[in-house]
Amino acid sequence: MPDLPSSHILFGGDYNPEQWPETVWKEDMLLMREAGVNLVSIGIFSWAKLQSAPGVFHFEWMDRLMDLLAENGIWADLATATASPPAWLTCRHPEMLPTLQNGTRLSIGSRQHYNPSSRAYREACAELVRALALRYKDHPALAMWHINNEYACHVPADYGDETAAAFREWLRDRHGSLEKLNESWGTAFWSQHYHEWEEVLPPRATPTFANPGQCLDFQRFCSDALLECCLIEARILREITPSKPITTNFMEWFKPLDYRKWAQCLDFTCLDIYPQPTGPVQTPVKSFDMTRSWSDGKPWVIMEQVTTHVNWRQRNPTKPPGLMRLWSYQAIAHGADGICYFQWRQARAGAEKFHGSMVGHGEPSSQRCYQETKALGNELKGLGRIAGTTFHAEAAIFFDQENWWALEQGSKPNNDLTYVRGVENFHNALHALSIGTDFVFEDSDLSKYKLLFVPCLYMAKPGVAEKIGAFVEAGGTAVITYFSGIVDGNDHIHLGGYPAPFRSLLGLSVEEWAVPQDDLPFKVSVTRQPGLAASYNASFWAEVIRSEGAETMATFSEGYYAGLPAVTRHAFGKGCAWYLGTEFEQAFYDDLLKVLARDTGLTPPLAVPAGVEVTRRTGAGKEFLFLLNQRNEAQSIDLNGLSGTEILTGRQIACSLELAPWGVAIIETAVGSESIE
Amino acid sequence: MPDLPSSHILFGGDYNPEQWPETVWKEDMLLMREAGVNLVSIGIFSWAKLQSAPGVFHFEWMDRLMDLLAENGIWADLATATASPPAWLTCRHPEMLPTLQNGTRLSIGSRQHYNPSSRAYREACAELVRALALRYKDHPALAMWHINNEYACHVPADYGDETAAAFREWLRDRHGSLEKLNESWGTAFWSQHYHEWEEVLPPRATPTFANPGQCLDFQRFCSDALLECCLIEARILREITPSKPITTNFMEWFKPLDYRKWAQCLDFTCLDIYPQPTGPVQTPVKSFDMTRSWSDGKPWVIMEQVTTHVNWRQRNPTKPPGLMRLWSYQAIAHGADGICYFQWRQARAGAEKFHGSMVGHGEPSSQRCYQETKALGNELKGLGRIAGTTFHAEAAIFFDQENWWALEQGSKPNNDLTYVRGVENFHNALHALSIGTDFVFEDSDLSKYKLLFVPCLYMAKPGVAEKIGAFVEAGGTAVITYFSGIVDGNDHIHLGGYPAPFRSLLGLSVEEWAVPQDDLPFKVSVTRQPGLAASYNASFWAEVIRSEGAETMATFSEGYYAGLPAVTRHAFGKGCAWYLGTEFEQAFYDDLLKVLARDTGLTPPLAVPAGVEVTRRTGAGKEFLFLLNQRNEAQSIDLNGLSGTEILTGRQIACSLELAPWGVAIIETAVGSESIE
Amino acid sequence: MPDLPSSHILFGGDYNPEQWPETVWKEDMLLMREAGVNLVSIGIFSWAKLQSAPGVFHFEWMDRLMDLLAENGIWADLATATASPPAWLTCRHPEMLPTLQNGTRLSIGSRQHYNPSSRAYREACAELVRALALRYKDHPALAMWHINNEYACHVPADYGDETAAAFREWLRDRHGSLEKLNESWGTAFWSQHYHEWEEVLPPRATPTFANPGQCLDFQRFCSDALLECCLIEARILREITPSKPITTNFMEWFKPLDYRKWAQCLDFTCLDIYPQPTGPVQTPVKSFDMTRSWSDGKPWVIMEQVTTHVNWRQRNPTKPPGLMRLWSYQAIAHGADGICYFQWRQARAGAEKFHGSMVGHGEPSSQRCYQETKALGNELKGLGRIAGTTFHAEAAIFFDQENWWALEQGSKPNNDLTYVRGVENFHNALHALSIGTDFVFEDSDLSKYKLLFVPCLYMAKPGVAEKIGAFVEAGGTAVITYFSGIVDGNDHIHLGGYPAPFRSLLGLSVEEWAVPQDDLPFKVSVTRQPGLAASYNASFWAEVIRSEGAETMATFSEGYYAGLPAVTRHAFGKGCAWYLGTEFEQAFYDDLLKVLARDTGLTPPLAVPAGVEVTRRTGAGKEFLFLLNQRNEAQSIDLNGLSGTEILTGRQIACSLELAPWGVAIIETAVGSESIE
Repeated sequence: MPDLPSSHILFGGDYNPEQWPETVWKEDMLLMREAGVNLVSIGIFSWAKLQSAPGVFHFEWMDRLMDLLAENGIWADLATATASPPAWLTCRHPEMLPTLQNGTRLSIGSRQHYNPSSRAYREACAELVRALALRYKDHPALAMWHINNEYACHVPADYGDETAAAFREWLRDRHGSLEKLNESWGTAFWSQHYHEWEEVLPPRATPTFANPGQCLDFQRFCSDALLECCLIEARILREITPSKPITTNFMEWFKPLDYRKWAQCLDFTCLDIYPQPTGPVQTPVKSFDMTRSWSDGKPWVIMEQVTTHVNWRQRNPTKPPGLMRLWSYQAIAHGADGICYFQWRQARAGAEKFHGSMVGHGEPSSQRCYQETKALGNELKGLGRIAGTTFHAEAAIFFDQENWWALEQGSKPNNDLTYVRGVENFHNALHALSIGTDFVFEDSDLSKYKLLFVPCLYMAKPGVAEKIGAFVEAGGTAVITYFSGIVDGNDHIHLGGYPAPFRSLLGLSVEEWAVPQDDLPFKVSVTRQPGLAASYNASFWAEVIRSEGAETMATFSEGYYAGLPAVTRHAFGKGCAWYLGTEFEQAFYDDLLKVLARDTGLTPPLAVPAGVEVTRRTGAGKEFLFLLNQRNEAQSIDLNGLSGTEILTGRQIACSLELAPWGVAIIETAVGSESIE
Repeated sequence: MPDLPSSHILFGGDYNPEQWPETVWKEDMLLMREAGVNLVSIGIFSWAKLQSAPGVFHFEWMDRLMDLLAENGIWADLATATASPPAWLTCRHPEMLPTLQNGTRLSIGSRQHYNPSSRAYREACAELVRALALRYKDHPALAMWHINNEYACHVPADYGDETAAAFREWLRDRHGSLEKLNESWGTAFWSQHYHEWEEVLPPRATPTFANPGQCLDFQRFCSDALLECCLIEARILREITPSKPITTNFMEWFKPLDYRKWAQCLDFTCLDIYPQPTGPVQTPVKSFDMTRSWSDGKPWVIMEQVTTHVNWRQRNPTKPPGLMRLWSYQAIAHGADGICYFQWRQARAGAEKFHGSMVGHGEPSSQRCYQETKALGNELKGLGRIAGTTFHAEAAIFFDQENWWALEQGSKPNNDLTYVRGVENFHNALHALSIGTDFVFEDSDLSKYKLLFVPCLYMAKPGVAEKIGAFVEAGGTAVITYFSGIVDGNDHIHLGGYPAPFRSLLGLSVEEWAVPQDDLPFKVSVTRQPGLAASYNASFWAEVIRSEGAETMATFSEGYYAGLPAVTRHAFGKGCAWYLGTEFEQAFYDDLLKVLARDTGLTPPLAVPAGVEVTRRTGAGKEFLFLLNQRNEAQSIDLNGLSGTEILTGRQIACSLELAPWGVAIIETAVGSESIE
Repeated sequence: MPDLPSSHILFGGDYNPEQWPETVWKEDMLLMREAGVNLVSIGIFSWAKLQSAPGVFHFEWMDRLMDLLAENGIWADLATATASPPAWLTCRHPEMLPTLQNGTRLSIGSRQHYNPSSRAYREACAELVRALALRYKDHPALAMWHINNEYACHVPADYGDETAAAFREWLRDRHGSLEKLNESWGTAFWSQHYHEWEEVLPPRATPTFANPGQCLDFQRFCSDALLECCLIEARILREITPSKPITTNFMEWFKPLDYRKWAQCLDFTCLDIYPQPTGPVQTPVKSFDMTRSWSDGKPWVIMEQVTTHVNWRQRNPTKPPGLMRLWSYQAIAHGADGICYFQWRQARAGAEKFHGSMVGHGEPSSQRCYQETKALGNELKGLGRIAGTTFHAEAAIFFDQENWWALEQGSKPNNDLTYVRGVENFHNALHALSIGTDFVFEDSDLSKYKLLFVPCLYMAKPGVAEKIGAFVEAGGTAVITYFSGIVDGNDHIHLGGYPAPFRSLLGLSVEEWAVPQDDLPFKVSVTRQPGLAASYNASFWAEVIRSEGAETMATFSEGYYAGLPAVTRHAFGKGCAWYLGTEFEQAFYDDLLKVLARDTGLTPPLAVPAGVEVTRRTGAGKEFLFLLNQRNEAQSIDLNGLSGTEILTGRQIACSLELAPWGVAIIETAVGSESIE
């Protein structure tokens, strides 16, 4: 079997044959081959079938399954099966069940009912994983390891006594001494000083606002505690099967886990993604960009999406015909090398029997879900040479998971403020203009970017302001928005006038915040108009800004701060830094981006009509231009001199190209061909 | 004293004299006799007054009360007093207090604070009931037994350890083996396989969706656990007073208890009914029809209603003058032989002191509640010959309590779907046309009906589809609606294409569901118009339907399934079966019913104007036609040749009849008199 | 140092220097003196810094702080530091943590995590308070004692076992015997009779409505339990420092605590007040009047307000420039002799770091908060002679904390009914007309008032109706509103026709209530028009009223009670009593007040334009007239012959006076000068 993932676009899904008689397995193999499936994730929820007591394993059925896959040329993404502990285990160790903040202990009967810090859980996982790895280490079907499943999706935190002990250990490592912990948590406030380590607890239910330092450290600890669970498994797997790649499936912009840190510990990054397909449609593109960015641009895989509809929202509309194909190609256009689904065959019992699948409850031949699956799977067989190429980006958005945690902890001036909205404002504008965009982190190399957006970076940890300052000084353009640079990594105020670490970069200070009680818009007047309108609606937040060198680009029109700056620009070194002191309507971000793209020379790979996205992947001397029609109506693209092969149809194209409703085209050219530069 | 309930319309209420000094009892007797009261329910909340320790009873006050009733010719509906355990008992057995899903144990101080599976509770009930029955078995006032009170109204389920053990016993009985339980619950999903019985638990709080099979069985168990409590009492009573009828009070369409099953265990069926009287007025008629149907049409009793207003809603509007009388007669018109109230005398303390009553806090002579009570009570004295006659129905609506449980368990395509709404659509239309309607169940005889409605029968248990098919084959007309026939009794999908068990009957298959995100209406166009409009608004649900022989009667106008069938009709045997693949506005159901009534020859007993209902009761050679004006304005009825005696006024009527606002008339004729056929 | 509070307006704030290095303390002293600060509250959250184990105290830092204050001429309001127990204490005594109604035990990490009935907590408080008092009893900075902090703001009740025992003791004291408790609680209802004291519990989570008598007594107990905590400290302080005044900070109209009772136990009354400053602005005036009234008109102190914005609402708008000054003077205008803030220096860590302060995170010289603080502090230095004078009121509103508890317990005819709204209707009208208004209580002397409002006095305890009757009989005018006089102090109905204790005073009876389902307005027609409009909108409540001598002033226009009285007036002795049987729009209350003011000869101290308030304080032969512009626009006042000195500017004024937006003027004249009578 070939290496992974190069030279193939992976295609397949979660496969749970233990729910079906083995006669159905045979039919599955035929259908998978017909549909172009080359990878299935197995064993994800098989613990209770694989083990019935400590040391008592039942691998026979899995042996037969692995053999069957190998016979049919299908790779196994073999799960470690630790996501849902069996009843025999929780019965023996009730202390491993999760404890909520209010002391309620959760029970069995769904999934993920374990405390990540439980010693019993961790030891049982290790025993199972070692047995699995030893059993299948040389099996020809084994392609990769799928550790656990969607860590933290239901139980992001445990508050019990075993967690308390583990939290104290983690705190000792982080802070070194109790005195430093007291300083970091600001325990001089509200008489919270700790005199002994044993007094320290997780942030259980309290009469009112809990200590922010304690809460922030607990969020860090919770992410790390699950990462340690993952690494316990990974170390065993790497010892036994050092050549097999290891992953676990991430869930979009997921607040509880610091995926940037996690991604460094995995061999490649996977995404489970379920955008809302109707009503307010949620574009998946920002998650595609984020997933790629977690691993610094390396190819990644959609591990789960659905053909039609999910079952876990209050209402579960279905993707209309064509939308699943569009989004699949859009993932590839943003750097994915694999498209998988939850799940292969729709369950006939259990809590997910109304979750869509590749093969539904009826006859495959008469099901849209299977027909669309099969069509896409066969199309992807011809795209193997895209695998391993690199997505092209020159703009970046700064993202910091710990800022997300700190910003939304409550007791802020405006507690409706969400980090995601601040980030989306810019990503929406960049996506609409087809400007390739990475997310960057505090440890990222910024030198390849021309334009950097820094939304609501409330928590500016040591070195971050300096890093952004250096980027601007070297000629970059940065846009920083309101309520940035307020606290340090311990959630202590940067004293000396907001936003202290950014004051010299931005050439201003912020005297105070003026939060409106309601969501009514107010006007901001543009005073200098480099491509902007005369005024924009803003809402939600306002700052009383005093220029200390910055140019005023726009001013507030209302309130006791009317006439003071709302938007500023400040030359700094070879670059410049903008500051936005309020929350604008989307049109402002769109217009501002056009101004900035013009000023920094950023252009999309091809000028395309509204609703069409164009992206570029390059590698090994080849270049692939993806054209994606995000509207349910045909659109015509002027190729503007570009020519090449449209590889889905195999046709040579020139002059112009028609995209069907939700249609896709992929044009292959040699790298650097002048047609597209 | 005479037998019950024949030859009298029962009239009375809950009577709690233990809250008052005995001097008030004397006044009560005078007022009761003045008001025509012939039955009071006593002892419902008297446990703490009747017993102060194990084996220590205090019956003297109850002796005096029973004697007083007998002296005044008032029957006692003697309660078993087990609805609210006394503090001395829960103090001795704290384990009998109910445990919620999250582990919270409820406390004393309100009522119904017992775990139905508690051995201590059950034994204490048995002791009390035996003592009561032995004490009063020969008392002349004793007319019937009122077991407990409104079972499950506050505590439908307990999740504690004693319940866990009882649940396991119940499961052993149901499934026989653990392997069969695993199969039934689909535990291959999410690693939920049980290896030992001791691992099995009630569905306590879980991280996410609990196992649907476990939840469904737990709903069955909870209904059965309380029924067993009821039967423990009933067995003792039947042993000691075999001739006294036994009942307990039901609460309208109440989800936790399978009243159809319960009704088989009682001697007659009672209803507690509290429709909202203003704003969105809730008609009680569907509950009247359901109550009668639980006992296959036998006469039933309103055990509780209120004269004016309740106290337990957020806002408690009062019934305007006349509405209580109308609804009381409407109950009789739908088969009731008794009209009782909660309660006789309004409490002066406690949580229900603002609940309306027959006698209020002030002077009875100046109170509307007492005046209306007295007027009705005296009117009913003359209606004894209606008692025991039978309500006339030729249409039926299929109803299945377990389908209610399964349908609304969550993780469905549209989790806003409620069973009650689906059922009400049809009942509203039938009620508006005065077409007498029964509810029917999986064990009902369908042969007497011409028209059968089967709304949202998601769970089609073994034999049900066959039974409905046989009804159609024999010449009946059935109307089945969307999301029917999806799962079997274990909540496992009927494989082979939806709705598998109904496909041949309906002549179609359903490929998939298309649930809208919002509640905006969409158009459905009628393609064949047997009395229907050109189009109707639909919303909420849509199905992609493929005809396999059915005629398309209407099609969707929007979505990727535009032009495909929304309504179909299929000839089957001597009858025909309709299918509705979406949720319509009420006008569609009204219009469709007119079409179906015409086609099947169903007519109301008399043509009446909108807002007037007409029903028929027959028996012993007599026929009673009830005319009920459901509007607060006078209406004139054309009798269309009918003549007879209006028995409330004693007048002979002919030609026409005037109904006062909310007025009632009852016309008595000989059965089969041509005037009303 | 001078006595307190006479001859000075106190000015200062909470001061938490333990959060800062001592170098900052020096800067604080300079800034405080610059800002006119003469009082700081210290030690409020210092327990963990003052004591590290039983008997182990650390007073050195507090010694240095007290010395520094004394050196700088700043008084210490020394807190007893018991508001937030240290972790070492809760670790030793986990049973002192609070238990919620559902059994959840709260944890440490915020504040106020103690059960008021905990013996361990009370003993630890006593030890700390004794040590503090002995340490600082002779310190020159010590001006007063600040016991605990905002009692009950997060934990108004505990439901654990230690509380259960304490509750039983309290009940024994209140009721004397279990039989009387059973009678008081109406335990004949729902089988709740208690046979042993040990069966009695706090009202923990119950299946449905808990016993109202139990709930009401528990609310009384909870207020008393915390008052006992306060008194344990007060007794120690009074023993050691008998000359130092004692207070604790109250929180506006706060439902859990009976502040009227508490105020009798303190030396003076303090208010913490945080009105919402934008959107729907909350005027603080009704809290100013209430605070003064708790102590029968004695001068009081704002212990906490904020310069700019708080941090604990969902959104936290800031006070625009000038509003804090206006409200500070408005407090003084309503009898305050001190203006303090939370807090002096804004925290840099912890849950309140975004709560506004006198000195913010940046440079004081560039901060609005400090500039406004300093300006006000220096202005107040000249107003010492106002201290100790008395606010002038001739109208009163009856207020009863236990009625608040009883009225809002649930299971009422309309459970949206709130006591505060009923009270505000009248206070709004009185405030708009600048008619000085006290709140009065069941033990108040009513003889000084001409006009008395009695809104929604559901619970009429023994003597209350008689007291109000005597007020009217002696010539007063009373206005009583709907749902008054319904129950006695045990929440038992006053039998005999509503509102039994007020029937003869009002000359009417109420037959029943008619609560609308919705909030749509209905019309009430005025039948006699002494200055009223022809009709008003009403909503929310209606009563079926039968006159028994009262004049009908207005009638309902809708419903089955159309034409019956909605408003009545009844001459009684030398006075008269109005009754309002519904809830009106504000205009009705405003118009009615004008009528009543005219009839009773009540006038404001000066005729002022809308939006301006005028109040009067008198004492020691002086009279101060406060003019307060509550609008953000200048207003001109016609002085109508009045002359005197405007003491903020020192100017003699006559004829007219201009008030700046949110401006204030204080005119000093000799008492009885004809210019203002």
